[in-house]
Amino acid sequence: MIRIGIYGYGNLGKGVEYAIRQNPDMELAAVFTRRSPETVKIDTEGVCVCHIDEAKNMTDKIDVMILCGGSATDLPVQTPELAKLFNVIDSFDTHANIPQHFENVDKSAKEFQKVALISAGWDPGMFSLNRLYASAVLPEGKTYTFWGKGVSQGHSDAIRRIEGVKDARQYTIPIDAALDAVRSGAAPDLSTREKHLRECFVVAEDGADLKKIENEIKTMPNYFADYDTIVHFISADELARDHSGIPHGGFVIHSGKTGKNKENNHVIEYSLKLDSNPEFTSSVIVAYARAVYRMAEKKDFGCKTVLDVAPGLLSIKSPEELRKELV
Amino acid sequence: MIRIGIYGYGNLGKGVEYAIRQNPDMELAAVFTRRSPETVKIDTEGVCVCHIDEAKNMTDKIDVMILCGGSATDLPVQTPELAKLFNVIDSFDTHANIPQHFENVDKSAKEFQKVALISAGWDPGMFSLNRLYASAVLPEGKTYTFWGKGVSQGHSDAIRRIEGVKDARQYTIPIDAALDAVRSGAAPDLSTREKHLRECFVVAEDGADLKKIENEIKTMPNYFADYDTIVHFISADELARDHSGIPHGGFVIHSGKTGKNKENNHVIEYSLKLDSNPEFTSSVIVAYARAVYRMAEKKDFGCKTVLDVAPGLLSIKSPEELRKELV
Repeated sequence: MIRIGIYGYGNLGKGVEYAIRQNPDMELAAVFTRRSPETVKIDTEGVCVCHIDEAKNMTDKIDVMILCGGSATDLPVQTPELAKLFNVIDSFDTHANIPQHFENVDKSAKEFQKVALISAGWDPGMFSLNRLYASAVLPEGKTYTFWGKGVSQGHSDAIRRIEGVKDARQYTIPIDAALDAVRSGAAPDLSTREKHLRECFVVAEDGADLKKIENEIKTMPNYFADYDTIVHFISADELARDHSGIPHGGFVIHSGKTGKNKENNHVIEYSLKLDSNPEFTSSVIVAYARAVYRMAEKKDFGCKTVLDVAPGLLSIKSPEELRKELV
Repeated sequence: MIRIGIYGYGNLGKGVEYAIRQNPDMELAAVFTRRSPETVKIDTEGVCVCHIDEAKNMTDKIDVMILCGGSATDLPVQTPELAKLFNVIDSFDTHANIPQHFENVDKSAKEFQKVALISAGWDPGMFSLNRLYASAVLPEGKTYTFWGKGVSQGHSDAIRRIEGVKDARQYTIPIDAALDAVRSGAAPDLSTREKHLRECFVVAEDGADLKKIENEIKTMPNYFADYDTIVHFISADELARDHSGIPHGGFVIHSGKTGKNKENNHVIEYSLKLDSNPEFTSSVIVAYARAVYRMAEKKDFGCKTVLDVAPGLLSIKSPEELRKELV
């Protein structure tokens, strides 16, 4: 059995707890929290909820520690620190900082002979894999990534900070015409506005100036100004009833040409349609936790990304079974 | 530079020749043929066309030999034999025989310290990867593979063997209702007939009994009897004008559930739309030839499938570049 620790018990940590149950070679060993452990109720009987300060005393009880904190402030500190004690895996998703995070984690993991895998999930993660495979196979081509339809937590938060807004939910939506143009193999140049639109469901405070809120949203730099944005004002009840899920998804589409005169066109498309963004991310992380465990057994120490992991290491099945049933 | 040999110069070998030009770290070293070399014209100047008997004298001139023969009789003999002399790669695609082929090739490759990769292409190949990733990430789910729309050489040949048939082209077509049912996450049980239909374009000999030909096609065991089959009789000119391409493609779709009570559904879809089946297969093989070369440098000898290869090894870019640009 692969003994898993969960470090941080929010949406992602809960998703990891459920995902472990789908993998009969794994067991949940402990959940670590910054809160008072007695205030945290988990869904698995007989498993210790421990304060994060206790983790350092449990290195012999955990094979892989799954870090479920946020990319902004938690993981840049936690992953390099915990990689001194455990084999670790995180879902660090600040794309621009991945090289620096990799360096920091690699240093710890190599010095303390651990395996660390960063940036597991779907983007970065499954989408990174698909960008890699497609561009390696069809080097004379162009790769596009679209996100949605799905909830963007960052954009929802940005709306909530506007004066007069009680609550909000923002959906990122890929534009069909752009998807179709890419699928045609035309390799179009697409502006930010042409690729995605943003749809916002806003609960305003009583008596708030709706025109002013709508204008503040639509003109907000970085978040909305470069997009076509639709704003709906709805009641708190409607928000709770129709917009409480956390769906997401997206597309990686690559088109490329082959042949003596590049006369043949090929389109590779990968898409995800996810009812729950955190639970799918958790499922990816748990599959990669198996790979981390196996790489640690082979003493293949250091920091890795999904690009460094042979796919077969993710599966509970043996290489023989995989060749027989799945190749 | 990675020096590539092409062993067998049909559609696939030609595709490899073109694909090498898209990869600036590779060069074509030689083409090997069973025919008289002087009768074979290749498209790259200054490159030797050699008889296959000369290959054994050129082990110091070739880093990776790409075997472009057929899976029925060529590769089962050639790949284990050539793996004694070269790092090799093939596109062996008889799924049921992959385990035996692997054993045979692995024995040679390990004994002679070579790297061999079998079954590169799109199915087996890219589709195998997608079946693996999806089922490892969402183990409580179901994977479906659909092929087409595309030309099946085997089915076209089967029609050509019928008395009174001059020429024929058969398209395998996935059925939209089945694709939609799978995409809905309903995880339906689908019969052979529900998944694909077969459309045939047949050129009959003058005075042939068309009704009889149509009946023979539709009732042919294994090839057509289990499918809904459409037969069109057309002229040789129409066949040449409208059906001379070799397009193909298909879909790997996996749906699976997560959550405390499996309340969340997720759909992962990978699809290919290929103008030229052999040229795309060649492009996959050439990317994996780079991985074979790198594994040989690391002395990671033996037989491999795509499931054993870390994705990053396929790319001309360095791990640092990939982390910065693509993860």
